[in-house]
Amino acid sequence: MPNKKRSNCPLSCSLDIWGDKWSLLIIRDLMLFDKKTYGDFLNSNEKIATNILASRLLELEENSIITKNEHPDSKAKVLYSLTKKGIDLLPIIIESMLWANKYYILPVEKMAVLADIENDKEAFIKRKSLELQKAVRKVPTGR
Amino acid sequence: MPNKKRSNCPLSCSLDIWGDKWSLLIIRDLMLFDKKTYGDFLNSNEKIATNILASRLLELEENSIITKNEHPDSKAKVLYSLTKKGIDLLPIIIESMLWANKYYILPVEKMAVLADIENDKEAFIKRKSLELQKAVRKVPTGR
Repeated sequence: MPNKKRSNCPLSCSLDIWGDKWSLLIIRDLMLFDKKTYGDFLNSNEKIATNILASRLLELEENSIITKNEHPDSKAKVLYSLTKKGIDLLPIIIESMLWANKYYILPVEKMAVLADIENDKEAFIKRKSLELQKAVRKVPTGR
Repeated sequence: MPNKKRSNCPLSCSLDIWGDKWSLLIIRDLMLFDKKTYGDFLNSNEKIATNILASRLLELEENSIITKNEHPDSKAKVLYSLTKKGIDLLPIIIESMLWANKYYILPVEKMAVLADIENDKEAFIKRKSLELQKAVRKVPTGR
């Protein structure tokens, strides 16, 4: 349960956990762009600050949305992965993308994944969730 | 377009606009609880601070998510209502509620609306959106 729960409304409870400008972007990176390390997240287009990234990763881990695993090539690095609870944030991310795509002209490269989503949203969510859950089972538990 | 767009990703663009702990709660109040005035929002269970409420209402209005209308009974009061762009945030709110309801035990009164949503999500979104759009047409334009 979040540390400072504002009410028993499930929306408020959700926002207590990931209601900021950055948490869902980290989840997006794990979900859609196959990013896995601190450095990967730092290099995303939105240019998250290191202190914000560190604090969000910790919060997401404390809320069982992501887990930390050993990096096969380096003891100094950590691989992050989504839990089932994290994967289940996919519909929220998809709906948020569709809303912005409807109301804003997003210039330059349109995300390729968006065409897939617009084509059949429910099928995309189902397929992607299964794919992500299979990946979860392959990750060695780090601790 | 938001003032400080961080990237062309539609998720980031969405979060630039409503990615904080409060904006979606105001939209929820307008959507599901028939709240319409500054005082209504202030009285919600989450106890938003007056300065945060004022700043969020202004941002939501600037982003064409809500509009201000004259109150029929008082020149000193303002009625807020959702635009079509605001109503289209409904699927994000619903998915966020369902996620929290799946992973957290929310004590005391469970929101009655949640039973409706769980029963048939797509039907609920369709019915509620239509209902909200009809209400939009009935609101006199304030300015």
